[in-house]
Amino acid sequence: MASQHGPSNAPGRPALVALAGGVGAARFLRGVVQVVPPDSVAAIVNTGDDRLFYGVHVSPDLDIVTYTLAGEIDTERGYGLAGDGTRVVDGLAKLGHETWFRLGDRDLATSLHRTVRLSEGAGLAAIADEVRRAFGVGCRILPMSEDPCPTFVELSGGRRVHFEEYLARDGAPDDVTRVDLEAAAAATPGPGVLDAIAAARTVLVCPSNPVVSIEPILQVPGVRGALRASSAPVVGVSPIIGGAPVKGPADRLLRGTGTEVSALGVAQRYGDLLDGFVIDHADADLAPAIEALGLRVRVEETLMRDASISAQVARSAIEIADELRAGARR
Amino acid sequence: MASQHGPSNAPGRPALVALAGGVGAARFLRGVVQVVPPDSVAAIVNTGDDRLFYGVHVSPDLDIVTYTLAGEIDTERGYGLAGDGTRVVDGLAKLGHETWFRLGDRDLATSLHRTVRLSEGAGLAAIADEVRRAFGVGCRILPMSEDPCPTFVELSGGRRVHFEEYLARDGAPDDVTRVDLEAAAAATPGPGVLDAIAAARTVLVCPSNPVVSIEPILQVPGVRGALRASSAPVVGVSPIIGGAPVKGPADRLLRGTGTEVSALGVAQRYGDLLDGFVIDHADADLAPAIEALGLRVRVEETLMRDASISAQVARSAIEIADELRAGARR
Repeated sequence: MASQHGPSNAPGRPALVALAGGVGAARFLRGVVQVVPPDSVAAIVNTGDDRLFYGVHVSPDLDIVTYTLAGEIDTERGYGLAGDGTRVVDGLAKLGHETWFRLGDRDLATSLHRTVRLSEGAGLAAIADEVRRAFGVGCRILPMSEDPCPTFVELSGGRRVHFEEYLARDGAPDDVTRVDLEAAAAATPGPGVLDAIAAARTVLVCPSNPVVSIEPILQVPGVRGALRASSAPVVGVSPIIGGAPVKGPADRLLRGTGTEVSALGVAQRYGDLLDGFVIDHADADLAPAIEALGLRVRVEETLMRDASISAQVARSAIEIADELRAGARR
Repeated sequence: MASQHGPSNAPGRPALVALAGGVGAARFLRGVVQVVPPDSVAAIVNTGDDRLFYGVHVSPDLDIVTYTLAGEIDTERGYGLAGDGTRVVDGLAKLGHETWFRLGDRDLATSLHRTVRLSEGAGLAAIADEVRRAFGVGCRILPMSEDPCPTFVELSGGRRVHFEEYLARDGAPDDVTRVDLEAAAAATPGPGVLDAIAAARTVLVCPSNPVVSIEPILQVPGVRGALRASSAPVVGVSPIIGGAPVKGPADRLLRGTGTEVSALGVAQRYGDLLDGFVIDHADADLAPAIEALGLRVRVEETLMRDASISAQVARSAIEIADELRAGARR
């Protein structure tokens, strides 16, 4: 089925907006840009994982999305650039620095560029746009905010760590007691974020970690309101398949914040945000319960092992949105 | 002949001080540390070439000396680390940055360390000490100053560029009209610099560029006075062989600042700084004229193609100093 998103849309007005984290979002978006014109897509990307390393501003999710859409992601690691080296972090290790965040050399160049441009007064959104253009990416990459929005994970015993410390340094332990998104909740939306939502005909919620990737975006003041005010259907893709995340610590973070680790649990957690949901064949038995929440459900192969599966998942999500929009018009 | 510098010196009191620039100094110093114990040597190093690249504090001469003494210098390029890569600058080029300064990846790690530590409040001298220890270098590396001391080169037509722009970006053009060392002339000597000179039994002036490597050190207030106040003989090694520099633009800078490009010209330029001078066989005919300036001269093979020649040049310079000291006692 041909999508209703096409080059006929006014240039500069993204018709499709996706809320995005890192790996899962990036794999899904590489499908989206096969189904609709890349320049009709805007990804609103989580910046809660951003952190300074060696004084350099690293934006993991912005870069994972950009590199993936550029076809340059290191697919094995899930982040960084394919074929990159680690001479810089190896050199820093020799000089006594912690190097648990394995920043590659070319990847560091992106972050160094970001840091230089920030010091020159450029905004994170303009810089993300420079980077995606340099990498030949047609889809817009919009940071959810230009303010620092660090996500903190609280653990048993009162420990509190930055999300990247939780994930990359500490190996994502299971004793999560709370996730602190207060910085996001006090931030200003990034340039273009609210406009993109207002102009969108379709909103997709990527199969990202609901707790630390999508929720930070929703916490930014104005984002939920813009989604509610929009008539665009909001369709999600479940990041949980058969009771487990495809990648990353979503299970530990969902459990730690009181959500059942299942496609149903995620749908319940998103509450009235979603109008539709794509779930995996493995979770077909959950479809009735999710439909009972008022969501249009599509059961699909959602493990995006290659770009053609990504395209199929994207097509399904966009078709649900198109059906919902057509239904609303009737 | 056994040197009079030995382990008998009080620890922590360098007995031999060398004024040093980059490549020529480094090759000479790798000889010095074969002749006397490395921990009895302090190199006072030019920082006039220091410059921020991408917000990162690069200290070319400090690092060239350190890497050379560590046996890790890229001998072909004369700077940077052997076997290093250029993924970071390649990545920055893709993002639109100028990359005429070909900073290697591991080399960048050193400068990133310096930048982080500076931002934490550490001084350039403490950082140089951290770096040389991490590289297993026994010789002390003392920045001439911790203040910014940029050397500017003025060219015909009123152009004025930072020394690294002159050298690495513009290819060292021949129309030098003046060298501006005003920043060095207003700087405070680095920690340990004046103490090291005061405690030295021997001062060596490395075969570095007299105009932009040695002169900046001499311009730092207090350095010339400390050298004059010291009873240590000061022995130089000519950076000019047969009327040409071994490496770099010393010819253009000497000419542009009114000095004949010869071992004699350099000796005249240094004036009463030197008590002795090692010159090359190629310049043997200049020995009488240099001796007529009141200097003790040794004619030697000074093209330091390998470490054993470096050791022989160092031995000659130290022997001249020993002879001068013995003569002074008589």
